[in-house]
Amino acid sequence: MTRKIDIFDTTLRDGEQSPGASMNTEEKLVVARQLLRLNVDVIEAGFPISSPGDFESVRRIAELAGDQAIVCGLTRAVEKDIDSAAEALKYAKRPRIHTGIGVSPSHLADKLRITEDECVERAVKCVKYAKKFVEDVQFYAEDAGRSDYNFLVRVIQAVVDAGATVVNIPDTTGYSLPEEFGRRIKYLMEGVNGIERVKVAVHCHNDLGMATALAMEGVRCGATQIECTINGLGERAGNTAMEEVVMAIKMHEYELDAATDINTREFCKASRLVSSITGMNVQANKAIVGANAFAHSSGIHQDGVLKKRDTYEIIDPADVGAGQSQIVLTARSGHAALKHRLEELGYTFEGEVLDQVYEAFLNMADKKKEVYDEDLESLINERERNENALYSLESVQISCGFPLTPTATLTLRDAEGAVTTACEYGTGPIDAVYKAVNKIVQVENDLSEFSVQSVTRGIDALGEVTVRVAAGDGDVYTGRGADGDIIVSSTKAYLNALNRLLADKRE
Amino acid sequence: MTRKIDIFDTTLRDGEQSPGASMNTEEKLVVARQLLRLNVDVIEAGFPISSPGDFESVRRIAELAGDQAIVCGLTRAVEKDIDSAAEALKYAKRPRIHTGIGVSPSHLADKLRITEDECVERAVKCVKYAKKFVEDVQFYAEDAGRSDYNFLVRVIQAVVDAGATVVNIPDTTGYSLPEEFGRRIKYLMEGVNGIERVKVAVHCHNDLGMATALAMEGVRCGATQIECTINGLGERAGNTAMEEVVMAIKMHEYELDAATDINTREFCKASRLVSSITGMNVQANKAIVGANAFAHSSGIHQDGVLKKRDTYEIIDPADVGAGQSQIVLTARSGHAALKHRLEELGYTFEGEVLDQVYEAFLNMADKKKEVYDEDLESLINERERNENALYSLESVQISCGFPLTPTATLTLRDAEGAVTTACEYGTGPIDAVYKAVNKIVQVENDLSEFSVQSVTRGIDALGEVTVRVAAGDGDVYTGRGADGDIIVSSTKAYLNALNRLLADKRE
Repeated sequence: MTRKIDIFDTTLRDGEQSPGASMNTEEKLVVARQLLRLNVDVIEAGFPISSPGDFESVRRIAELAGDQAIVCGLTRAVEKDIDSAAEALKYAKRPRIHTGIGVSPSHLADKLRITEDECVERAVKCVKYAKKFVEDVQFYAEDAGRSDYNFLVRVIQAVVDAGATVVNIPDTTGYSLPEEFGRRIKYLMEGVNGIERVKVAVHCHNDLGMATALAMEGVRCGATQIECTINGLGERAGNTAMEEVVMAIKMHEYELDAATDINTREFCKASRLVSSITGMNVQANKAIVGANAFAHSSGIHQDGVLKKRDTYEIIDPADVGAGQSQIVLTARSGHAALKHRLEELGYTFEGEVLDQVYEAFLNMADKKKEVYDEDLESLINERERNENALYSLESVQISCGFPLTPTATLTLRDAEGAVTTACEYGTGPIDAVYKAVNKIVQVENDLSEFSVQSVTRGIDALGEVTVRVAAGDGDVYTGRGADGDIIVSSTKAYLNALNRLLADKRE
Repeated sequence: MTRKIDIFDTTLRDGEQSPGASMNTEEKLVVARQLLRLNVDVIEAGFPISSPGDFESVRRIAELAGDQAIVCGLTRAVEKDIDSAAEALKYAKRPRIHTGIGVSPSHLADKLRITEDECVERAVKCVKYAKKFVEDVQFYAEDAGRSDYNFLVRVIQAVVDAGATVVNIPDTTGYSLPEEFGRRIKYLMEGVNGIERVKVAVHCHNDLGMATALAMEGVRCGATQIECTINGLGERAGNTAMEEVVMAIKMHEYELDAATDINTREFCKASRLVSSITGMNVQANKAIVGANAFAHSSGIHQDGVLKKRDTYEIIDPADVGAGQSQIVLTARSGHAALKHRLEELGYTFEGEVLDQVYEAFLNMADKKKEVYDEDLESLINERERNENALYSLESVQISCGFPLTPTATLTLRDAEGAVTTACEYGTGPIDAVYKAVNKIVQVENDLSEFSVQSVTRGIDALGEVTVRVAAGDGDVYTGRGADGDIIVSSTKAYLNALNRLLADKRE
């Protein structure tokens, strides 16, 4: 029988830790629904002790998942962390607590300041404590990629004996070479008694661009669970990308004696969804889900592909859901058609709310004529952003060009309903609008990134703008806005970021 | 003595084959200058027979490089290709011809339709023919990653005997697993007589996200040359990224007994330059050069890094030239200061041209106050784009907002000096401008991508817009424009793409 490799998604935990990629609970639920459609084995939903938002996300995703997936909460090797995770997972059908401690010389000496014996003792203690709440306890040996081989065997042996059901070997700094990391996994498989009774997981980072290869070598040498994220999101250069590692296993199922249960046709949609929600764009030359992943340009290659597809292409684009964008609705589509399509995309709306969405859809369809799935997703995201906003856009009016002085007149409504108007000029129209916004919303901030993606094809495509602003204390907030008018999208994106900043700082 | 690993850059050949990433000769020279600053061993400058532009690029880069780097031209195993490469490399101080043929069952049977014997015969013949022109002949065994081990040994043995100085083992489809690819290289090292007298190169693709790891395994198992590109640009999901593979070797010099001569402090600048010229943006979670590569967000990690940097970070950001953006010039800077700074960036301007650049700089400095290196690079790029344009922008005037109907009035000047004005309304201001452009420049095209990056930080940053348009026959053209006003940048970018399309179709 082929080895089943569990896919453990950590987009909502490690992925969300990317600077500027933070998501609120509603956004995390949208991503979690897509993870269930992908059929992942485990969803790491957050780090419950770290914030009330993370706690709430873990709790609600645990309810959402039911028995479709294991839901996991992260903790340090600390009792109060484990208490919090257990509480957040109380209603989960299949709960898992993920606890652990650093095991490398650097972590022991500089970060934890403990001896090897103390490390083993704390590891065992946290696993035993977690076992009081749940049966399924995963232990992580942080910075295992730089740890001593024999000490790692000792720690893992101790936690396996203490009842851990999964042991996670992370290459926390993304430092390892694939061959060496594989050797490490093999050494554990051979050195730890009873290792065949637990799952061995790999969690790899991409600092040298090899996160996917490290995970693949781990699997080749015995690992049976991969920790990964959509689009390879994660701290610094990110984690193993789920779409890459799953397709690599699929292409090499026979040599590796390994397979996953992932519904690969959901990859492109998952990629778009996560990039839209987090504002973290995917480069064109990204494997599997990049815009060019299946595009051929050179004459030689085109000729080869025309003669026989597999001369240059090993994956059928349809297998990862690429190139399936279709016109689904127009201004003549009724309530029922919109409701049905939204349900297929994973959104359920009823009554008055559905009427509001339909109104917004008609407004878009009048301007755009052809409404794609991506346009609908953008419209829903835009709607969710506007709920609970402190400042909302009443109107904005711009005149600009070359040679002209860009000028903006802006009216905002605040939470109490008071309306304020301001006008400003600037280097460009967006600069002018942002200065006018700053005149009304007086909060210290620094715009660190601004980008625009067209959501769909064509000259009349909806523009989705992502901005990142840094608050006075250095915290980064992402804002997004979508509209047919790029200046209006930009205004909405900036307001979205400032609304998030203000909400967070008031908490 | 540590093994020296040659870095063979193919940004200007394989990288340029990315859909929409094509560069003209001037742009290729700018990139080539940066490759010389990086101190690469070999520059693959193009595929001379493929177009007059490629021929000219190879010729001029050969002149530029002098004896600083080997300059290489690609050919198929065809005499006329080799003639053309030899001609283009005539004035090179250190010329190399890169010729080869497919060796996998799929390439032999479906693309080339030849037997194994015929393949060996053609391989030997092309190497011998190339040797008539140059001493340094590199042979590529296309799709070697899917070839039969023993047939690959046979082909490589034959070309080594025929005088090849470098043998290149590409994983053309990006299909291999790292361990298997390493095993293949080892098999060659052990099976080919005299292999120690030639260089063994690896050329890996990123279709499964493992191009860097494949190259690293190649080096571990005996390869002494790596083919790679800046930002991992290249066909489909791209090639091995130079910045990743060089830093991975640097981090593991001792285990691998390997080192390169690359000046790693030029990586971030090289990345920005290539992404600005090709319009291929780099995602935030890209290893080494991504915006988040060295950013820490989670509380645990920040705490660790504050205690000791190497708890979570293995590379010093300064080693790759990260975070060195500085305000270098203001409106009070004189001619000499500008000239000096431009020279440090690799641009030389004199007399009237310098005056024009200074004028444009002052105009920018008045609006922006703080002028960064990236702003200057963008200004120079903008200038180069405007030369030889068929249509140039005289003026554009926009009014838009919410709730307003976006309207644009545009005046263009054509190559004969005739001036035409048009006005249009649209979904948004850019749609309105583009419709007005289309009214004047009547050429069939489809906008397939639109994106904006801010060149520098802050609300008044210069916006650089990249668009991709597809001509009626499916060919893709990239256009770029930079201005403080995003609508003006967008207009310039669209005109740039259409000018390129028109120039190409008239050739």
